[in-house]
Amino acid sequence: MTPRGRHFFANPGPTNIPDSIHHAIAHHSVDFNGPDFLAVYDACIAGLKRVLRTEKHLFMYTGSGHAAWEATLTNLLSPGDRILVIETGNFSEGWAKMAADLGIEVQTLAADWRRGVDYAALQAALAADGAHAIKAVCTVHNETSTGVTLDLARIRATLDAARHPALFLVDTISSLGSLDYRHDDWGVDAAVGGSQKGLMLPVGFSFTAVSDKGMAAHATAKLPKHYFSWTTMQQRRHKSFIGTVPIALFYGLRESLRLIEEEGLDNVLARHRRLAEATRRCVRHWSGNDGPQIYCLSPERVSDSVTSILVPEGHDAEKLRRRVATMNVALGAGLARLNGKVFRIGHLGDLNEPMLLGTLAATEVGLRLEGIPHTPGGVEAAIAYLAETAP
Amino acid sequence: MTPRGRHFFANPGPTNIPDSIHHAIAHHSVDFNGPDFLAVYDACIAGLKRVLRTEKHLFMYTGSGHAAWEATLTNLLSPGDRILVIETGNFSEGWAKMAADLGIEVQTLAADWRRGVDYAALQAALAADGAHAIKAVCTVHNETSTGVTLDLARIRATLDAARHPALFLVDTISSLGSLDYRHDDWGVDAAVGGSQKGLMLPVGFSFTAVSDKGMAAHATAKLPKHYFSWTTMQQRRHKSFIGTVPIALFYGLRESLRLIEEEGLDNVLARHRRLAEATRRCVRHWSGNDGPQIYCLSPERVSDSVTSILVPEGHDAEKLRRRVATMNVALGAGLARLNGKVFRIGHLGDLNEPMLLGTLAATEVGLRLEGIPHTPGGVEAAIAYLAETAP
Amino acid sequence: MTPRGRHFFANPGPTNIPDSIHHAIAHHSVDFNGPDFLAVYDACIAGLKRVLRTEKHLFMYTGSGHAAWEATLTNLLSPGDRILVIETGNFSEGWAKMAADLGIEVQTLAADWRRGVDYAALQAALAADGAHAIKAVCTVHNETSTGVTLDLARIRATLDAARHPALFLVDTISSLGSLDYRHDDWGVDAAVGGSQKGLMLPVGFSFTAVSDKGMAAHATAKLPKHYFSWTTMQQRRHKSFIGTVPIALFYGLRESLRLIEEEGLDNVLARHRRLAEATRRCVRHWSGNDGPQIYCLSPERVSDSVTSILVPEGHDAEKLRRRVATMNVALGAGLARLNGKVFRIGHLGDLNEPMLLGTLAATEVGLRLEGIPHTPGGVEAAIAYLAETAP
Amino acid sequence: MTPRGRHFFANPGPTNIPDSIHHAIAHHSVDFNGPDFLAVYDACIAGLKRVLRTEKHLFMYTGSGHAAWEATLTNLLSPGDRILVIETGNFSEGWAKMAADLGIEVQTLAADWRRGVDYAALQAALAADGAHAIKAVCTVHNETSTGVTLDLARIRATLDAARHPALFLVDTISSLGSLDYRHDDWGVDAAVGGSQKGLMLPVGFSFTAVSDKGMAAHATAKLPKHYFSWTTMQQRRHKSFIGTVPIALFYGLRESLRLIEEEGLDNVLARHRRLAEATRRCVRHWSGNDGPQIYCLSPERVSDSVTSILVPEGHDAEKLRRRVATMNVALGAGLARLNGKVFRIGHLGDLNEPMLLGTLAATEVGLRLEGIPHTPGGVEAAIAYLAETAP
Repeated sequence: MTPRGRHFFANPGPTNIPDSIHHAIAHHSVDFNGPDFLAVYDACIAGLKRVLRTEKHLFMYTGSGHAAWEATLTNLLSPGDRILVIETGNFSEGWAKMAADLGIEVQTLAADWRRGVDYAALQAALAADGAHAIKAVCTVHNETSTGVTLDLARIRATLDAARHPALFLVDTISSLGSLDYRHDDWGVDAAVGGSQKGLMLPVGFSFTAVSDKGMAAHATAKLPKHYFSWTTMQQRRHKSFIGTVPIALFYGLRESLRLIEEEGLDNVLARHRRLAEATRRCVRHWSGNDGPQIYCLSPERVSDSVTSILVPEGHDAEKLRRRVATMNVALGAGLARLNGKVFRIGHLGDLNEPMLLGTLAATEVGLRLEGIPHTPGGVEAAIAYLAETAP
Repeated sequence: MTPRGRHFFANPGPTNIPDSIHHAIAHHSVDFNGPDFLAVYDACIAGLKRVLRTEKHLFMYTGSGHAAWEATLTNLLSPGDRILVIETGNFSEGWAKMAADLGIEVQTLAADWRRGVDYAALQAALAADGAHAIKAVCTVHNETSTGVTLDLARIRATLDAARHPALFLVDTISSLGSLDYRHDDWGVDAAVGGSQKGLMLPVGFSFTAVSDKGMAAHATAKLPKHYFSWTTMQQRRHKSFIGTVPIALFYGLRESLRLIEEEGLDNVLARHRRLAEATRRCVRHWSGNDGPQIYCLSPERVSDSVTSILVPEGHDAEKLRRRVATMNVALGAGLARLNGKVFRIGHLGDLNEPMLLGTLAATEVGLRLEGIPHTPGGVEAAIAYLAETAP
Repeated sequence: MTPRGRHFFANPGPTNIPDSIHHAIAHHSVDFNGPDFLAVYDACIAGLKRVLRTEKHLFMYTGSGHAAWEATLTNLLSPGDRILVIETGNFSEGWAKMAADLGIEVQTLAADWRRGVDYAALQAALAADGAHAIKAVCTVHNETSTGVTLDLARIRATLDAARHPALFLVDTISSLGSLDYRHDDWGVDAAVGGSQKGLMLPVGFSFTAVSDKGMAAHATAKLPKHYFSWTTMQQRRHKSFIGTVPIALFYGLRESLRLIEEEGLDNVLARHRRLAEATRRCVRHWSGNDGPQIYCLSPERVSDSVTSILVPEGHDAEKLRRRVATMNVALGAGLARLNGKVFRIGHLGDLNEPMLLGTLAATEVGLRLEGIPHTPGGVEAAIAYLAETAP
Repeated sequence: MTPRGRHFFANPGPTNIPDSIHHAIAHHSVDFNGPDFLAVYDACIAGLKRVLRTEKHLFMYTGSGHAAWEATLTNLLSPGDRILVIETGNFSEGWAKMAADLGIEVQTLAADWRRGVDYAALQAALAADGAHAIKAVCTVHNETSTGVTLDLARIRATLDAARHPALFLVDTISSLGSLDYRHDDWGVDAAVGGSQKGLMLPVGFSFTAVSDKGMAAHATAKLPKHYFSWTTMQQRRHKSFIGTVPIALFYGLRESLRLIEEEGLDNVLARHRRLAEATRRCVRHWSGNDGPQIYCLSPERVSDSVTSILVPEGHDAEKLRRRVATMNVALGAGLARLNGKVFRIGHLGDLNEPMLLGTLAATEVGLRLEGIPHTPGGVEAAIAYLAETAP
């Protein structure tokens, strides 16, 4: 039997879908080439660019976030090109593996998962590439597996300082609409995003925002492609998608954008920061008495969309997750090598104080039941912080 | 702007409507006399009787709970008949006023709202009525304004001991499906209920379960009626309703009954008891340091569907409610004379641990922000209790 | 098994509910006394008055149309008052029966159901009532059982010409939002309507629009009431409803009013007229060869919201209905004495050309299958008419 | 303003989505690795295999139908491999173009779009390939642009007779769940399908059913891939998808499969045949008087999921479509070189008699309004056929 009451979905992705988006998506089928739909479509494209803070190019795919990464690689690179992947965690490893599968040479800039990359190491790697063999630097803005973020402006500045012409590719999947992201200002050449995180939609479409420099690189990119081909897309009315357009999701996206703009993007980001900090106050309190700890050890890099939490040695994060699930709360699992060692609380998308507090409180019930050491009172710490910072 | 995230509806009524019930209600219109609908209808009637624990008569109305009270009075009584209303709070006052408006003579058995009636006083009132002028005793099972319940079996026993023939009328509106209710076992002659509480449906229909003794009384009842006439209803295929049947709500009721029976009615009640006690543990903790108090002063009469909470003298419960509403949490207001003095937390219907904990935690944020004295840590007390009592 | 595809609901009530109204109704529960809901509520009241074309009083009930008729009678009349009910069909009989049950003296002005009342007979009845014993004249604007309408302006004029002070009570249940209705202009004292017809909502609320003269009559009306009491309602913030307000339906009503005002009320009415005439063209074509006939014999009184169709002697309308139901089309049954003799096609509410044409065509399939004589080609007649009158 | 009433979506894809599927899709987010979801997922995979009539391998993608074609090509072929594409129309051209973009050598077997391929020509092409350079024969089962189908069993037999080892690849996008398709019986090595046609879901996932022979070919296929890699998929719990699984669509698919199995797949196919033939009866009637004609000239190859209709020379199918759209009916456009020359009526998925008849009737209104020559009475011909063949 499904537990009663609302499901508290605190996985860092996908995210909670507001009722109004569910209703918008439940739209009858329409002609995706007809004028009614095209008006919705065009408005969505314009709105999505505002969220990306770009006035440049945008290509969309029926696919998940991984589809957008593949599209980005195949549209920008040629067989044998080298890319520099900044290690962040499970997702940087994934993109590196994908690139290798596609015939790209991958150079990884190693980093401690709990601290994130040393920018000096990036500087060194670029300096060492005097021949400019590195065609692109791949960066995960917010590593969903670890809850560690990178400072994209600083990476941009490092590229500029090195006068390195590599394309700057960014995964914004778990940051867009949750963390500050400025595509044009930060000179990102291709940014990958998806429907199922800050946009509060189901999995279904993903996209790449592309700079003019990116489009120039595309013109000579030779990796084979068709479903993801930007050139082919540009010949279509929609300038995106190959095949049938995912109609229903555009009605959802229209509502998503309405919600974001009603609240104001800056307010959305501030809400994420505040709820994330409440989460951290709670976990830091628990961490007394040899309790669970925030996985990220660099205070200025903690993520405002997801917190990864390391359970004490000898305890199983998966058992905790299963226990908390009996209260209809879904915490995120530790991914790959972190499985069983960390659990994750997603605090992104359509979230408010009682949703977060209910999640933290149920987690504390779980800590008690699983006999995981912790200092009780984490939720009170979150309550106190939220009271101090009430708007 | 509406606050982001889920709405936490902690009013004691209506209650949270599960998604699956929303979907069931969103049914296209059908012929309410056609065979497909009648199969749904008949199954709902049978199921609703199981929830009422009755095998006797059931009449339904398109209307709110007040409609069912009016129907019950007009179908059972004649002009000038006397009823004894046991005072419980705002709702007993309402039914007394209604009865008077309909031409019934009302005798009120006074009681302290914070403690509930003294059963000895009931015994005395019945004994004093040697002529059996009292045709019915009206009891609110769970007084939603105060969070105080009455022991219906004991009232039945008191009537029996007094050998008093009065009909035993019960308002189960905020108890059915939340508190134990046994229509046939307890010899209730007419019980009033509605769609919008433990049945987890929107406002829309209400009903009366009637004993054989009640039906006998109906045969001679002379108050004028048509929309609510049980005699007229019995001539219809549906044996209920005058005019168009509220079709959509029956699809919702079918799903409501499925959910209740999937969980098991006894488990539903146990869940209510546990979440209610968690609420009380929290409030009792807050009540230290001259903090808010549980309104009900009789520990064995506290309600498992709603807790009324008295804020300290000099503080305004309405200001607290407005503050908490900014976090998208709707607490219940104090009704009538209790307005501003109490706030209420409904913990009935489709509720689970994180929903309740989120509500309590947001309330604690509100207490801090409004400067209402309390001992912090109420939510921890609830967490501890829930951990102790985890299934 | 439910037949596949969309259900074609061609009963004259309830009516088809647009998806956007379904979605609006699927709203989470809110505090019906809170500011967010009250803003929605107040806008709905104002909009509903615009549809009624009144600036006067409006009272609403959780209940079906019959509830509103009972409310209207009990709020305007005293025991023993006499009313004149103009016979129209099943529904005028129903109201007469209700009034009698409530202790009102009923005088019926007899009329041929297929032609409607003779206005001269009304004039005579009023003239014969020199003592003004008739306190109210009750008129069904659009008799749903027969598909015959009355000219309310003419009835008003007849009352005026007779200088008769009787209240003018009108049932607009199956006309409001479908046929022209002008509450203030036509001097109607109380008009009864419901949610489930032209407003495209589920069954759930009903209402009475009341003139100043009606309110004056209310002040002295002595029939007992509470659930329906306008005086009690006026003491509440909502000025309507006793008990919990049917919250969800107001979100639906807001969307209904948005749809009506987006299209324009006059355009809504014109759409009804055009689709009704298409229906009649079809039936008139069928009627050749001793086929089915339009029940209404007065061409100027045919209803634009429902067409009742008489099947040829010796054939069973119910068998036809069951046959057509296998194609997922619900035709309306003949009511009471017309059962088996007529079937009805509702063409009101959220309807367009293909919905109507699909219904007519499926009906023609049914006529063939049941061996009911008719001239084939009715649908072609409707097609031709719709082509001639395309906007 | 959107026209009132239901939208009649008669495009051949996507298709009408039943309410119950809309509701199923509106599911809250869940952990796609959690046990509740995995149970739903596994049941869906098993059910989808039953619809495909296969017990072999199945791989799924977040993507549209084109994604599945790309996945199929990249998982089965190596750079420079040759395929034989049987020309059918717009979609065979599309797959040929895709293959060429991916580095595959394409040989096209030319065919008349209105008649479909000559099987003798296929025999000849295979015979001419003594060296077995052709690695795969690509066949569109049901060409959506023309409404012409191919006999897959005969193509299989032709391959067998030629003892040619080429893989047999089939596009079932607009046939699966609408036309008879037998994956294992017909020895198809890879069949491509999507969510948005016979499965009655929105665009969102697509899939390939693969034979053991196909899996063997996969082991040596060298086209680069990652997002679509079957090998990578097999390492995941889901054995399909790269990245986040499209959770919501699986709740929808569960309901889709329930509907299909409730009706019975054979009954689903029979319903399609009957409604398709009704459409053809209508169009053949119209075609008198130099009216519109069925595009497909091979009577045994007419499609039961879509009918393409050629408008008379000098008339514009797009004008007709725009006119019919004012009645809220969406006909399909002519694709590519057929644009303006044909319009298409999709009669697949969740369709019944009145939906089809309403569409045909509205189209006939449009023919009149646009002055397109035709013999009136096409709808009557469809009515007569449906009456003759009623179950």
